[in-house]
Amino acid sequence: MFYTDGKLQFPVRVEQPNPVFARALQQAIGGVEGEIRVALQYMFQAFGARGPAKYRDMLLNTATEELGHIEMLATAVALNLENAPLSLQEEVSADAVGGAVLNGMDMRHILSTGLAALPSDANGVPFDCSHVYASGNIAGDMYANVTAEATGRTLAVRLFNMTDDPGMREMLSFLIARDTMHQQQWLAVLEELGGEQAVLPIPNSFPQEKEQTDFSYAYLGHMIDGSIPEGRWSDGPAMDKRGMF
Amino acid sequence: MFYTDGKLQFPVRVEQPNPVFARALQQAIGGVEGEIRVALQYMFQAFGARGPAKYRDMLLNTATEELGHIEMLATAVALNLENAPLSLQEEVSADAVGGAVLNGMDMRHILSTGLAALPSDANGVPFDCSHVYASGNIAGDMYANVTAEATGRTLAVRLFNMTDDPGMREMLSFLIARDTMHQQQWLAVLEELGGEQAVLPIPNSFPQEKEQTDFSYAYLGHMIDGSIPEGRWSDGPAMDKRGMF
Amino acid sequence: MFYTDGKLQFPVRVEQPNPVFARALQQAIGGVEGEIRVALQYMFQAFGARGPAKYRDMLLNTATEELGHIEMLATAVALNLENAPLSLQEEVSADAVGGAVLNGMDMRHILSTGLAALPSDANGVPFDCSHVYASGNIAGDMYANVTAEATGRTLAVRLFNMTDDPGMREMLSFLIARDTMHQQQWLAVLEELGGEQAVLPIPNSFPQEKEQTDFSYAYLGHMIDGSIPEGRWSDGPAMDKRGMF
Amino acid sequence: MFYTDGKLQFPVRVEQPNPVFARALQQAIGGVEGEIRVALQYMFQAFGARGPAKYRDMLLNTATEELGHIEMLATAVALNLENAPLSLQEEVSADAVGGAVLNGMDMRHILSTGLAALPSDANGVPFDCSHVYASGNIAGDMYANVTAEATGRTLAVRLFNMTDDPGMREMLSFLIARDTMHQQQWLAVLEELGGEQAVLPIPNSFPQEKEQTDFSYAYLGHMIDGSIPEGRWSDGPAMDKRGMF
Amino acid sequence: MFYTDGKLQFPVRVEQPNPVFARALQQAIGGVEGEIRVALQYMFQAFGARGPAKYRDMLLNTATEELGHIEMLATAVALNLENAPLSLQEEVSADAVGGAVLNGMDMRHILSTGLAALPSDANGVPFDCSHVYASGNIAGDMYANVTAEATGRTLAVRLFNMTDDPGMREMLSFLIARDTMHQQQWLAVLEELGGEQAVLPIPNSFPQEKEQTDFSYAYLGHMIDGSIPEGRWSDGPAMDKRGMF
Amino acid sequence: MFYTDGKLQFPVRVEQPNPVFARALQQAIGGVEGEIRVALQYMFQAFGARGPAKYRDMLLNTATEELGHIEMLATAVALNLENAPLSLQEEVSADAVGGAVLNGMDMRHILSTGLAALPSDANGVPFDCSHVYASGNIAGDMYANVTAEATGRTLAVRLFNMTDDPGMREMLSFLIARDTMHQQQWLAVLEELGGEQAVLPIPNSFPQEKEQTDFSYAYLGHMIDGSIPEGRWSDGPAMDKRGMF
Ligand SMILES: [Ca+2]
Ligand SMILES: [Ca+2]
Ligand SMILES: [Ca+2]
Ligand SMILES: [Ca+2]
Ligand SMILES: [Ca+2]
Ligand SMILES: [Ca+2]
Repeated sequence: MFYTDGKLQFPVRVEQPNPVFARALQQAIGGVEGEIRVALQYMFQAFGARGPAKYRDMLLNTATEELGHIEMLATAVALNLENAPLSLQEEVSADAVGGAVLNGMDMRHILSTGLAALPSDANGVPFDCSHVYASGNIAGDMYANVTAEATGRTLAVRLFNMTDDPGMREMLSFLIARDTMHQQQWLAVLEELGGEQAVLPIPNSFPQEKEQTDFSYAYLGHMIDGSIPEGRWSDGPAMDKRGMF
Repeated sequence: MFYTDGKLQFPVRVEQPNPVFARALQQAIGGVEGEIRVALQYMFQAFGARGPAKYRDMLLNTATEELGHIEMLATAVALNLENAPLSLQEEVSADAVGGAVLNGMDMRHILSTGLAALPSDANGVPFDCSHVYASGNIAGDMYANVTAEATGRTLAVRLFNMTDDPGMREMLSFLIARDTMHQQQWLAVLEELGGEQAVLPIPNSFPQEKEQTDFSYAYLGHMIDGSIPEGRWSDGPAMDKRGMF
Repeated sequence: MFYTDGKLQFPVRVEQPNPVFARALQQAIGGVEGEIRVALQYMFQAFGARGPAKYRDMLLNTATEELGHIEMLATAVALNLENAPLSLQEEVSADAVGGAVLNGMDMRHILSTGLAALPSDANGVPFDCSHVYASGNIAGDMYANVTAEATGRTLAVRLFNMTDDPGMREMLSFLIARDTMHQQQWLAVLEELGGEQAVLPIPNSFPQEKEQTDFSYAYLGHMIDGSIPEGRWSDGPAMDKRGMF
Repeated sequence: MFYTDGKLQFPVRVEQPNPVFARALQQAIGGVEGEIRVALQYMFQAFGARGPAKYRDMLLNTATEELGHIEMLATAVALNLENAPLSLQEEVSADAVGGAVLNGMDMRHILSTGLAALPSDANGVPFDCSHVYASGNIAGDMYANVTAEATGRTLAVRLFNMTDDPGMREMLSFLIARDTMHQQQWLAVLEELGGEQAVLPIPNSFPQEKEQTDFSYAYLGHMIDGSIPEGRWSDGPAMDKRGMF
Repeated sequence: MFYTDGKLQFPVRVEQPNPVFARALQQAIGGVEGEIRVALQYMFQAFGARGPAKYRDMLLNTATEELGHIEMLATAVALNLENAPLSLQEEVSADAVGGAVLNGMDMRHILSTGLAALPSDANGVPFDCSHVYASGNIAGDMYANVTAEATGRTLAVRLFNMTDDPGMREMLSFLIARDTMHQQQWLAVLEELGGEQAVLPIPNSFPQEKEQTDFSYAYLGHMIDGSIPEGRWSDGPAMDKRGMF
Repeated sequence: MFYTDGKLQFPVRVEQPNPVFARALQQAIGGVEGEIRVALQYMFQAFGARGPAKYRDMLLNTATEELGHIEMLATAVALNLENAPLSLQEEVSADAVGGAVLNGMDMRHILSTGLAALPSDANGVPFDCSHVYASGNIAGDMYANVTAEATGRTLAVRLFNMTDDPGMREMLSFLIARDTMHQQQWLAVLEELGGEQAVLPIPNSFPQEKEQTDFSYAYLGHMIDGSIPEGRWSDGPAMDKRGMF
């Protein structure tokens, strides 16, 4: 069961509303790198957890934090939409602060929400829950979570670089810090599970002798001239110490 | 910001696990009539609320309750999947409790989640957030919410009638009661806003004299023989008392 | 079976074509608030109607009207696309009536349709038929229909405010009037069915004593400080007169 | 503008209702080969037509016919769902006419519609309007329409072969005949436009000398051994008589 | 099994990068008229081919070519994104080469890919594989393929007309030539199969006497005044010479 | 540019065709854990690679291998569909090897493809390319790839356990081995990039002092009782050695 205090986890303020930046922020709400995704992903991983209770609790706790990030970003979108141009009535070419900006807006911010956030990405594509990865294998799920936080932090940094609004930069610097922590957190679970050697290959429940082991550590070439793009993956011991590339 | 206590809002137990019923329950999680939808819908209505704070608080509070309904149903799905058949190895025809049941399962419960819930409907179609209605018009949103709870309660009743498991019926009788209340709740807001006469037509901010008023209260016929399907809508005063049908 | 006369239900003309407004109009065709949705929604409600024939006829008749609204709006999109800029060949910055406008267009109006309407919304997201609500419960469906017309009229009003083209305003004032009527129409059906007291809770076929009645009229608090957002929903008789909040 | 007479274009009756066949029929309503698609496709081609009026009228007329096919199939789905099993209460294994059948049903026929058709395919995936092809090039659109009717008739034939219900076979034999005609119809338009030689390559408005003509009639090989899969496409005059393969 | 040489099929160069044109090019990658679609469509037709091996080989060979077209276009998108504006920090109105251009970009080129192509269309809608037509009927599939190449070439021509970059025009003139050939190729298969008379109606395996033959060659009128839009389809011998319109 | 030899990478044979297993195999083709996804994901990562050429080559080479896995699985689906029941004509209850099996099939294998594979998952949901992760940050992309191979191998193991067909088990044991290798491969790239310490936090280009560093290594509690779910993530040095939890 969940509760709220009706407050933001971290202050959200906008000095200079920018409706085009509101559209950009949508990617962090409803994009595949966004907060709806991580909130639901950690939630469904928790709901389906059949192992030790502490992982379930830890996942549920962080899922709950992520809900608050949706709230912060939705607030930021609404603040950036204040005083947004609503009209095409004047010549588009005549008003740079009006017409040109409207061209870059998510038009549904005007038409569908009355200047509020959508659960969609920066192109207006609604979030779809096929992106909620919860496989029932905790190691695999931890890598999925690292991925989500890596793409999430990459997105937040790009948003940070896109704006010079002090309020927005402050909010984003908080979300970036949380993404730093969450990358650490999921990797910490992997270490606790025994690290790469213990968890690999995922799932580690399948006896490797049933694999076609000739192919388990070989980098196969598909270049037409028979060449092999070389690197750490084509030479030396495998990462799980159980084979040689 | 949100919090959790890691407990269920109401007890969830299953006496006789049934993996086909697990599939049916998915509709109440990730279907258009389901709990992900109402949780996010009320949340985004709250985040975008620009009117009196009490509506925002009320919406956010109920959104928070709905998150707990996702949790209850996901738990119910997992319990119904215990001991589910995982294999096609025996002749399908030879094992009615195995083969035939597997035919009716959501196969992704086996393949993708390891016997846990998905954020999808009973056909495995992932929930997509285009169903989160938050228009910026509170009266319109209240009708959207009544609709969501009406289809939600209809679904819950059908699920109730589909099972005779005492645990499942108990859980569903709770969810049905909450849907009863939530239908009342959104209608109560409409009454507080002044009722049909005050809120109609939605949005009531547009001066009706700018409409083509000849067509504002007329039931137009498109039957090829010129007949009009008659009823309350074709005769008598309009619902908003501002016109005659 | 259906017929057509090849004419528009109401005249559609555009004095000053505006390809950005063409994009905005797409929301009214293929958005969740749009005409494809209501046409199909009323149609599928009619096709599935198992009660008195008059409701089926009434639904089918209005579904048929809505098809004509798709036609009007598609015509309006095509007219607004006349003489639209098709080229990026000149410097974007050099031609405000060209380059800047193209930035705000739905580029698929150029690339995919040759300057005609798409069955998509203002962001180019195609309409998907999961939005066609037809639950088999007529009262629930009527609330769904009020919702559709409320969001539809809200959208039409916002489009009206966005343009000062006399032709477009005339067309929209007609569509707004029809949305006024259709809100009335679905509420009239609810009155004919006995009004809120008779139809609530939806579905009214489920005996309320089977609910967990302690929870049927209680506004539950999920605020962490135990407070309750108060209003009509937390005090007084319930809307169906069968309980107290 | 459209009209209806509230009657079916051709009688629809079911002697032995079969809820699994109801699911199969959904493909013909909301599948990519189905009737919603052709109805909207021909409609949007008509709405966007900028050439001679007769093509627009012809397209609109046939779009209108297709609406009636949705109606027929939705009626057939509802009839096949009469007396469908709604419950898992008995042991699934105990009742072949109940349990086993329910496994093969679209569960949303029970849960979401109350035994009526959905605008979805046989797997419950809702139709999405990205399948409405209307390119603004009439020759290309005619090939799209032949394709739609070819896949549509293939589907209808497979449905015919799946059932031995006399009523269903009669209905399908009508729809198959209409698909025969519609294949002819779109090819007739191509002939009227001058046939393959005149319309190819599509679009024929682009001067072929601007192409990299060395590659315009060459079947390029991508087999690793340098061999070429031979056939009519690798030898002889091209279909448009303007080149040699 | 597949191979690559890591080279482009045809040179791709951009003289004047244009990030808005990068967005337009996305339609040719991930649009319904694009290269992902044809690559997968021909591939799945090949994988499912149960007839003579030569058709399977021919399809697989051309599918393999199409993979290289995705590669060319993705390269073109990346080149057009070089030096794209990444920031809203300056006043949008102050910098025409920056702000105004960003308004027309696919913002996910900045936020999600770091200036590289997406498998999405020009509106950022991801390609979805329901567009991969492979019906198991070779004649029907050939018409689907002609359609794909007709819409593909129409799109490529529109892109050609949109740009005056010599590099982009050169690349597009190659892709246009390949679309010319591929239109020919699929029609050549139809000729090899016996032409329209032999393959029609599709599927030709269904005995036409089982159709409701009264309706097999009749253009039915749905105009309310009883008129019939006349043309080749309403008079004369049918295209398959087996009936009269 | 790509090539093919028209051969399978590894032999695919089926001793006992099972159309329900054909449906299960679809998840490995068009599911989010499937081969279309990895083929396109590695391809788009290669196309967008702006760093050292060897990573681009390595990605492209492995993308090319994955195309061959789609081919193997599509072949396996077709083989499992041989002799599948196509008809509901007999009593469903009368024929366990027919009727009951059909209930568990993907009905589109009959209706839409004529017994061949679809680019869809085990529930018939078409693959959509929003799952192609290519962020422009190589470290983040490598974690995305480990995730893809972890969920892919988990799926392949579940499919292996579902069948006892020797041919299918042999094919799956090959695909499992390749997934083992690919997990290693992407982790090897991470090691080559300097390992966790060097690549974290992702992206490592953003100066951490700009973060709200108080929150960068703190596991925040959202349990209502103030408790913290404890583990490696709440105590000790962070994984990147740059902070303490
Ligand atoms: Ca977050
Ligand atoms: Ca609820
Ligand atoms: Ca309307
Ligand atoms: Ca038809
Ligand atoms: Ca191509
Ligand atoms: Ca693979």
